[in-house]
Parts: sequence; structure tokens; C-alpha cells
Amino acid sequence: MTVNLDTVQAAAQRLRGHARRTPLMTSRTLDAQAGAQVFLKCENLQRMGAFKFRGAYNAISQLSAAQKAAGVLTFSSGNHAQAVALTGQLLGVQTTIVMPANAPVTKRAATEGYGGKVVLYDPQTQDREAVARALAAAHSYTMIPPYDHEQVIAGQGTAALEVYEELQTLDMLLVPVGGGGLISGSAIASKGLCPACKVIGVEPEVANDAYLSLRSKTLHTVKNPPTIADGTRTPSLGNITFPLVLRYVDDICTVSEDAIKAAVRFLFYRLKIVVEPSGALGVAALLSGAVAARGRVGVILSGGNIDAATMTAILAE
Amino acid sequence: MTVNLDTVQAAAQRLRGHARRTPLMTSRTLDAQAGAQVFLKCENLQRMGAFKFRGAYNAISQLSAAQKAAGVLTFSSGNHAQAVALTGQLLGVQTTIVMPANAPVTKRAATEGYGGKVVLYDPQTQDREAVARALAAAHSYTMIPPYDHEQVIAGQGTAALEVYEELQTLDMLLVPVGGGGLISGSAIASKGLCPACKVIGVEPEVANDAYLSLRSKTLHTVKNPPTIADGTRTPSLGNITFPLVLRYVDDICTVSEDAIKAAVRFLFYRLKIVVEPSGALGVAALLSGAVAARGRVGVILSGGNIDAATMTAILAE
Repeated sequence: MTVNLDTVQAAAQRLRGHARRTPLMTSRTLDAQAGAQVFLKCENLQRMGAFKFRGAYNAISQLSAAQKAAGVLTFSSGNHAQAVALTGQLLGVQTTIVMPANAPVTKRAATEGYGGKVVLYDPQTQDREAVARALAAAHSYTMIPPYDHEQVIAGQGTAALEVYEELQTLDMLLVPVGGGGLISGSAIASKGLCPACKVIGVEPEVANDAYLSLRSKTLHTVKNPPTIADGTRTPSLGNITFPLVLRYVDDICTVSEDAIKAAVRFLFYRLKIVVEPSGALGVAALLSGAVAARGRVGVILSGGNIDAATMTAILAE
Repeated sequence: MTVNLDTVQAAAQRLRGHARRTPLMTSRTLDAQAGAQVFLKCENLQRMGAFKFRGAYNAISQLSAAQKAAGVLTFSSGNHAQAVALTGQLLGVQTTIVMPANAPVTKRAATEGYGGKVVLYDPQTQDREAVARALAAAHSYTMIPPYDHEQVIAGQGTAALEVYEELQTLDMLLVPVGGGGLISGSAIASKGLCPACKVIGVEPEVANDAYLSLRSKTLHTVKNPPTIADGTRTPSLGNITFPLVLRYVDDICTVSEDAIKAAVRFLFYRLKIVVEPSGALGVAALLSGAVAARGRVGVILSGGNIDAATMTAILAE
């Protein structure tokens, strides 16, 4: 199969009654500063605090009874870990999440809080995917990777689908770019429903691998980029997401670390919502002028999972 | 006149297209912890970040052309100051706000940002209301006090009105209590539309003047109470609000400072919304068990204007 509008629409059916239909928020102040009519798709208000629930639920709910009985496995120290754990809890599927031993205690606790079994590895000496593959083989777990998986991508596309169901048309859609699952799904939905809408990815300047990959049409990699937007610290787009980005995404722009922090503050003080740095990339692009916005602009606020230390540091500036 | 359901409904007509119709939020986690079905009325998402816009707009928009031309005045260092300033900006009415010289710079800047003219007084040597009255007399300004004013109270009641328009019935409505404007208006709307609903005020333990006043049926006063919930630091209920509270409010409960902070954190981490300490009083009552909740419970989250230092201190615990 390949991901297309039909698979995204089928995912939306599957998610009905399970994922939250998140609201669109607007702000006169933001419109004035952006010079456009802006609609914020609040995936920070999604279950477990991020769009990742959509992809995980769409993928895991389609497994066979035997696969569900054997359990699933993933590797992630971020929102995908919590998404898989919560989905497993809802569907009665045992979940195992491979995390680096130095992952923040809060992330591990959140994953365990949803009933996920966390297996730690030493990032200095062990390869994450190798650890995960060995475990999966030994226990017959089904692997649900964080972005390079067609049903995960289809699930992530349902947030954009909901935006078009409410608004019909947009001139521009701004989407954060990490491993490319969210932007691939969003762009497929967008091109299917509103071909004239420009789909623009947003990346931190210091983690601009997707920007370089799209411009050069060659996969670029960045290792442990020093960005506060932890959801975009993935080394590169994936085998599945890179071709989808090349085919469906119009452009990728980049924003500075200061612009990301300013966007988190703006959303905190003006919109009164909690958005993690990766989730604020689209607003950062608008407020910093990294994109020339006009008309009706959709922005996917991808998540709201931020710890006290990070928010405190951002508010202190 | 006296405030009743008709005046609250007339206020709702006046606010249409000017105040934001704020959303109701729900949370499975909150429901599980509270043992009830909880609906959060998000007045933190109201214009200027608090319900206060409703009352200020309702009062000022009804002034005569001559009164509007002369300008209005109020005394407040909190959300009412911003509400009056924003209303003045929208209606083309000059606004003057009397604030103590030691008011936080951010509050003064926010008020001036909406076009309000700030006049400072020395709280050690001058009486706030006397300063305000002298200014009003000298310039023929109309005084719009923060809560003890019938049209302000009627405007504040429109938030509860919207809750009933969406939900029809509730078993309990939890409302923060400061000067009593919000709870008076909310209780009038509630008793008019759903007489069986228990209307419960929530106050900090260390600022329990309304609690004592309701229990003893005698007005109690508290001076500069050491609560983090700055919206409830008013010394007492007012001449108009006290009789309304006695008549329409079923009970008042109190919560500890720790419970207030825990509620702000819960709303930050679980709901991903920014709520100021006064705004979190209802959730604090639910999570701490200060009220025995059951059935369908409405909670008015009264505002979201919190500064970096306060949020940082709360997140650090």
C-alpha cells in the first residue's frame, strides 16, 4: 500500500470516539502580528498531549488478534512512547518501549503511568533500533516505529483532515517537521482536499536536515542537534517519509531557537495554552516572519508536553 | 433596579460579538479524580484573559453618550483594570485606572497596552477610593467599580448563562469568590435556569472572609490576606454583592494554598491550559476533596493572567 487521502480518511473513521477532535483556536493579536487569519489546531489538547496518539492508535488498532495478543514494541523517549502505551492500555495490548537510560525521569514515568513496560539501553554502547529489533524478534512483538510506518503516517494526517472539515479551504498550512510523519500525513490530506493550499514544514535552524533534504532532494542527517524543540531531534526523515515530503510538501522554512521560545511565551501569555517547543514551530515561523503569510493559515500545534525546567527557562527570558 | 435573570440575559445580548463565547473543556483524568463529570468554563480564554471583560463591557456600553464622552474611571491593579481599559479602547471611551504605586510593572504595562491611563497613588498615605472619587469628581468621570455594581454583576453572570445554554442542567457549579461579582452573577443565572443546581463558592483558607460572612450572615473583612490567589485579596464582599451571596449562594468552601498550586499544575500538565491561581480555585476544591462532588459539575476557570515568577514558583514544587 501507499498512504493517500483514502487511508487518511479510513484512519479518521478508526479514530472516531477514541482520539479527541481537538479545537481550532484563533487570536486577534496573532492575526494582527502575522498579517493573516490564523487557525491553531490544538493537538496539545489531544489525548496524552500530542498528535502522536492518532498514529499509534491507527496502527495498533489494525493489528490481528494474534499480533495484539503478542504485544507491540517501539523505541522512543518522547511523545510516541506515551502514545503507544496509552493505546495499548485502551486496547488491552501489552506495550514495551525502548528508551535510553538517560531519558528524563518524567518521560519514563508518564509512559509507565499509561501501563507501558520501559526497557532501558545504554546510548553510549548500544544501538536503539538493534536493541528494539532483538527484543521484538525474541518475543514476537510487532514493531510500531515513531514515524516511518504507513499507518502511523495515515493517523497523523487526520489532524489536518479535521481542519479542512471545519474550514474547507486554507491558503497555507504550517506543520512542524521531525521524522516527517506528521507533515507527510498532513500534506497528503491537504493536497487531497485543498490542492491550492501551500503546505510548509517548519524546522529549527539548528536541526535543518529536512530543509536541506528537500532543497537538495538528497537525504541529509543531523546528529543530536542542540535545539530546545526535542520532538525535532530525529536524525533525518525516514525511508517512507522522505519521498512523501518530496512529493507533497511545498517548502520547509527554519526558525531560530529564540523564535521558538518567543512563540511558546506568546502562546502562554496571549492564548493561555501550554505548547511544547516543537509544537510552537508554526507560530514561531509566523511571528518571526520566516514565512510570508497571507489569507487563511492553518497551524498545527503538535503537542503540549513540556517539563517544568524547560517552561521555567523559557518564561525567564 | 436589582440584578436578576433578565438583566443577566440582557447583558448576554449586549456582549454578543464582543465577548468571546469561551469553550467548555473536559478531562477523563479530572473526572476520575473528582468522581464526577466535570465541565470547565474557560474564562482564562476570554478577551484580556479573564471574565472581567464581561462585566466591564456590559456596564460601560450602557453609559449615555455624554458619560462616554467624559470618560470612565476605576480602581484596580488586577484583571478589572485591563477589562476597563480594553472596553474603553473598543468603545472609544477614555479610561483612567487608579493603581497603587507598588503595583507590578507587568499589570501596569498591560493596562496601558489597552490604552488605559494609569494614575498611581501611595498606598501608605492615600486611600484608593478617595483618590478615585476625587479624580472622578474633578473630571466628571463615571466610576466603574470592580464588583459592587449591578451591571458589572449582570455581565459576570453571562459566563454561567453560556454554561447552561450548552449543558441545560448541572448538579453543582463551583465559582471563585473575591469581591463577589462573579459568584453573584453566576448564582443568579444558575438559580434562574436550574434551581436544583448547588452553587458553591470557593475561597482560599487564608482569605475566607466570604465563607465567614455567609456562615455568620454578618460581613467579615480580611486585610491583605497572604494568598497566591491575588484575585481574591479583596477585603470583603460588597454592599451589593453580600446580600446577593446570602440570597443565591448555597455554600462556600475553602482550599489551602497547596491545593491551589496543585490545581494550577494539574491544569498546566493535564489540560495544557494556563490558569491563574484565583482561576483554579474550583479545580482545587474538586481535587482536594473540599467539596463532595457528584453528577455534573460546572467549574468557572475565571482567568489566566499569571506572571512568570508565579508560574515558575508553582511549577517548581
